[in-house]
Amino acid sequence: MGAERLAAFTDGVLAIAITIMVLELRVPEDGSFEALRASVPVLLAYVLSFVNVGLYWNNHHHMLHATERIDGRVLWANMFLLFWLSLVPFVIRWLNAGDFAAAPVAAYGVVLGMAAVGYELTERAIIACNGKDSAVARAVSADRNLKGKISLILYALAVPVAFVTRELALAFYVAVILLWLVPDRRIERVLRD
Amino acid sequence: MGAERLAAFTDGVLAIAITIMVLELRVPEDGSFEALRASVPVLLAYVLSFVNVGLYWNNHHHMLHATERIDGRVLWANMFLLFWLSLVPFVIRWLNAGDFAAAPVAAYGVVLGMAAVGYELTERAIIACNGKDSAVARAVSADRNLKGKISLILYALAVPVAFVTRELALAFYVAVILLWLVPDRRIERVLRD
Amino acid sequence: MGAERLAAFTDGVLAIAITIMVLELRVPEDGSFEALRASVPVLLAYVLSFVNVGLYWNNHHHMLHATERIDGRVLWANMFLLFWLSLVPFVIRWLNAGDFAAAPVAAYGVVLGMAAVGYELTERAIIACNGKDSAVARAVSADRNLKGKISLILYALAVPVAFVTRELALAFYVAVILLWLVPDRRIERVLRD
Amino acid sequence: MGAERLAAFTDGVLAIAITIMVLELRVPEDGSFEALRASVPVLLAYVLSFVNVGLYWNNHHHMLHATERIDGRVLWANMFLLFWLSLVPFVIRWLNAGDFAAAPVAAYGVVLGMAAVGYELTERAIIACNGKDSAVARAVSADRNLKGKISLILYALAVPVAFVTRELALAFYVAVILLWLVPDRRIERVLRD
Repeated sequence: MGAERLAAFTDGVLAIAITIMVLELRVPEDGSFEALRASVPVLLAYVLSFVNVGLYWNNHHHMLHATERIDGRVLWANMFLLFWLSLVPFVIRWLNAGDFAAAPVAAYGVVLGMAAVGYELTERAIIACNGKDSAVARAVSADRNLKGKISLILYALAVPVAFVTRELALAFYVAVILLWLVPDRRIERVLRD
Repeated sequence: MGAERLAAFTDGVLAIAITIMVLELRVPEDGSFEALRASVPVLLAYVLSFVNVGLYWNNHHHMLHATERIDGRVLWANMFLLFWLSLVPFVIRWLNAGDFAAAPVAAYGVVLGMAAVGYELTERAIIACNGKDSAVARAVSADRNLKGKISLILYALAVPVAFVTRELALAFYVAVILLWLVPDRRIERVLRD
Repeated sequence: MGAERLAAFTDGVLAIAITIMVLELRVPEDGSFEALRASVPVLLAYVLSFVNVGLYWNNHHHMLHATERIDGRVLWANMFLLFWLSLVPFVIRWLNAGDFAAAPVAAYGVVLGMAAVGYELTERAIIACNGKDSAVARAVSADRNLKGKISLILYALAVPVAFVTRELALAFYVAVILLWLVPDRRIERVLRD
Repeated sequence: MGAERLAAFTDGVLAIAITIMVLELRVPEDGSFEALRASVPVLLAYVLSFVNVGLYWNNHHHMLHATERIDGRVLWANMFLLFWLSLVPFVIRWLNAGDFAAAPVAAYGVVLGMAAVGYELTERAIIACNGKDSAVARAVSADRNLKGKISLILYALAVPVAFVTRELALAFYVAVILLWLVPDRRIERVLRD
């Protein structure tokens, strides 16, 4: 079974998740810039989430590009990943309604952390299906694994931290993004060789 | 006529249905965990529906993968299936507004039961179009048929049961999911041989 | 330039339009069947619109399947078609808010009539681009043209009629659907020969 | 790495952005034509935005059609473009809520101007990746560059102008569209030779 249709379905869900988030943004109440100011925090949460979903799409793109076969386990691990990413718009709305209270800030970490677990599970399922010597297995380097582990630790820390200082939890979410924005050229390199 | 574009359109509708359901979730009124607690039932309904649509996508994926030709009858049977699946977000909103009253719980069974009928009709139309000796016809085993029949019976029972004990009706919906999560490796096996 | 990406984009817009319509449905106010009864007219409008968009997808599917080339004129005629189809959810919401008053019933005819014009323009642009002897040109039979003309006349009549008897206008909309549900096997036959 | 999946993802986001805009339109309060009249300005903003997104899709379609390779820089420049286009529905809602006040009219120029910058960045990243002698590089003529520069100047002017005369700012937005609707046949010609 090929990976094309899984890639297409994942693209569809990610494209929709990234686009309908905008429906959750509280629109300024009138046509003044003061009204817009009240929307700034949720607009920043939107930017953060847009980049996060973009990162997932980008990494997923590379991973499936190197994948030859998928099976039922890959499909369901991927569903698990998509489930948590589909909750991002819900958390944005809650952040909005709760004025960035501790609980929704922590919930953001839970949702993104579980998505990171889902990505990890999908990757492992793909390697189990394609073999340890497959192109995709070789492409997942020690560096990628390290990044994945650091991300999970940061998310796990951010959840309790949110109840102490919300700003620090938000800083953790930004840190994970910066960690990943450093481009991962490993898969490309392995495929090239 | 090939099955690719039908698969792409179906993927699109399923990806959208699975993603916009999140727009129907009642967001907690403030930033407290108590407020989140009130959203737990509808979040569980979301999980249930996400898995259901995921199962349809998964089964549909396998079925169309083995399909060589489609005709007008296949197109419209598939439209019938998509119509009922598109109503899932509507029922989730009604469950939400009606606090899981008997009527929306029963409606959930009607919608999923009709979707199951739609899947059955699509499968029959595909077999009629591809012939009884086609890969897709051989792939639909007695086991698949049995699962399909049990699902329909469970949905048909859940609708009246919802007016007596809503919990039992919900248990029926969970039972159908468990029935299908046992992976159906038959199509894969037939294709491999 | 090939027709695949135009088909994919059109599929995407149609899949979204057909699915987000459900977001416009007024949900029953509580969990009783009496509350559902108030939603019956708009549910019927939903069924009508679902079948209409399905018909457009089906016809579009056949037309682009037989198309070899597209140009800028085809792209913009197709955009015009998609624009009017994208307004269907808006009219459904207006029907809902205005309790099926004359104006939104007439607006439904305007929107579907303009979509029919858009389909006609797309078809002509495709024939102009592919030539009168192309597969797609031969596939558009006199019968298809007749159906197209009758549809346009019915929509044009329904708009003023809506201000006299809304029921008759709605009957016209159903009549157009019945006219098209008679399967158009002509394109398939021409392609087969 | 091929450009197909990037094209598919971009198509998805654009198809969704263009379709969910309709959810932001304020529906007439009752079933009268007077009620519809109040929706006319936002319907015109919808038409304007539909054509704008359509133009981006069209230009993007041509550009990626001539593209052989993409890299991480192309992916992220394209994400930047999609981010700004995804905000169009948000601005439409704000225009609606603020009755076309100066601030949302200016914001419309900011969002479309930044999208234009994103398109420019994507184009440059593609040329950097494919080389100055590639089909896509030759296809981007002096004329295309001129149009791009004029658009950016018009958007940059429209933002401050919106606070003096909103009508003039809106006229600038229409002018940009007219500038681009003149079909750009250059890419097609270069590919043909």
